[in-house]
Amino acid sequence: MFTATTQIRVRYAETDQMNVVYHGNYAQYFEVGRAEAIREMGFTYKGMEAMGIIMPIVEWHAKFIRPAHYDDLLTVKTMLKELPTDHRIEFHQEVYNEKEKLLTTGKVVLYFMTADTMEKTVMPEVLAAKLREYF
Amino acid sequence: MFTATTQIRVRYAETDQMNVVYHGNYAQYFEVGRAEAIREMGFTYKGMEAMGIIMPIVEWHAKFIRPAHYDDLLTVKTMLKELPTDHRIEFHQEVYNEKEKLLTTGKVVLYFMTADTMEKTVMPEVLAAKLREYF
Amino acid sequence: MFTATTQIRVRYAETDQMNVVYHGNYAQYFEVGRAEAIREMGFTYKGMEAMGIIMPIVEWHAKFIRPAHYDDLLTVKTMLKELPTDHRIEFHQEVYNEKEKLLTTGKVVLYFMTADTMEKTVMPEVLAAKLREYF
Amino acid sequence: MFTATTQIRVRYAETDQMNVVYHGNYAQYFEVGRAEAIREMGFTYKGMEAMGIIMPIVEWHAKFIRPAHYDDLLTVKTMLKELPTDHRIEFHQEVYNEKEKLLTTGKVVLYFMTADTMEKTVMPEVLAAKLREYF
Repeated sequence: MFTATTQIRVRYAETDQMNVVYHGNYAQYFEVGRAEAIREMGFTYKGMEAMGIIMPIVEWHAKFIRPAHYDDLLTVKTMLKELPTDHRIEFHQEVYNEKEKLLTTGKVVLYFMTADTMEKTVMPEVLAAKLREYF
Repeated sequence: MFTATTQIRVRYAETDQMNVVYHGNYAQYFEVGRAEAIREMGFTYKGMEAMGIIMPIVEWHAKFIRPAHYDDLLTVKTMLKELPTDHRIEFHQEVYNEKEKLLTTGKVVLYFMTADTMEKTVMPEVLAAKLREYF
Repeated sequence: MFTATTQIRVRYAETDQMNVVYHGNYAQYFEVGRAEAIREMGFTYKGMEAMGIIMPIVEWHAKFIRPAHYDDLLTVKTMLKELPTDHRIEFHQEVYNEKEKLLTTGKVVLYFMTADTMEKTVMPEVLAAKLREYF
Repeated sequence: MFTATTQIRVRYAETDQMNVVYHGNYAQYFEVGRAEAIREMGFTYKGMEAMGIIMPIVEWHAKFIRPAHYDDLLTVKTMLKELPTDHRIEFHQEVYNEKEKLLTTGKVVLYFMTADTMEKTVMPEVLAAKLREYF
């Protein structure tokens, strides 16, 4: 299993009048978590797009257990439980607050696609090689 | 079953560099869909908060089938398949483009909660009475 | 002078914990106002991009006089006080609530640019012809 | 003069189909800049709200000189050129990319207000005392 963690400070803009982070903003927190997970492997999502591969989100699931508040320093944990074997990659993600309370759990499914043709493809070998070390 | 539809024009701000609507923005489209569904019943979510009842989102699920693009006039379909019997309410939502292609499906679970005590409660009777007509 | 108005319903996502619309979201309200102003002239900003012309924002100014609240039905007024003569176009914008109170005033400056070359250009003649009728 | 700098990584969500950061998102970058500037003085905006003082934005001005791109590590510079003497505080802000190119300049005016009464007030003395050291 590959696990990476990163921290995000909650912005005022991300709160709503319920005094908590608006649920839709977790999509961005999860995005940051995945981007930093890929960076930790010595690669970037930006670099993947530069190689002509894009990763559209095809499924997004989350359970909101406890709210996050303005200025909270959140920890986003991003897990890859299985090494992708085809065009599909599934991340499990969790958000914790500073008291290490679990706020949100999520599962995000993305596809590897060739930007030019919009056809499914597989993970770039450079990234796959890095990931194999963890499995 | 209760079904309501509303239309939303995609904003430039809602697109990303993949030339499609960023997946996290569907949380807002679904929110608008639910708000307009409640308004159609002669009630408003704003009115519910004024009564001291808030509805935090506890689960959010979506599948992204086809992308939405800038300036698309989307149709958001919001369905209540079952009448809530306790604090839990589950909406099914779908987004279509102008060619009536299904872009996104979702399921959103919310709780009725008393704002003051943050304890679970049930749907206000005024709304429940309206809804019973559909079931 | 060319003036167009459009209406926008405030989303929950757009509020913050001060119980008002987050100031940064007026950028989207102004964007919608400009898009609808162009549509009223029988043209679309989307169509302009399809012609290879993009309009990046180069200046954005706003004064926030009164707050907007969740579920408010806002009126965005978009004014073109002068016909552009070169690559520069300047919109004046105002946001009103349902009680016709002025909430926000703004000025937004955009450039007409050729997407391919990223060089300054002028307003497409098809749009200029429409606009001349108002001046 | 008081100056503080902080860094922000551009999120995918913050880009638009022009392949740049949507102009409205600089409101969030500036917000983060101001929050970190206050934190650097050993105080937090969150703490100010806990004291019953809120700081609504009353003016927001920006010039967009060069675009920011996905995954750019931006530097936000926040400057207080004058010590506030009444309810009004004016921040000057600048955004730079990794090549130290100036992307955006801004000026943001906020008021100190008592949350309960919504009346103008002055900067909390604890913060004013810290700031005086810089002037």
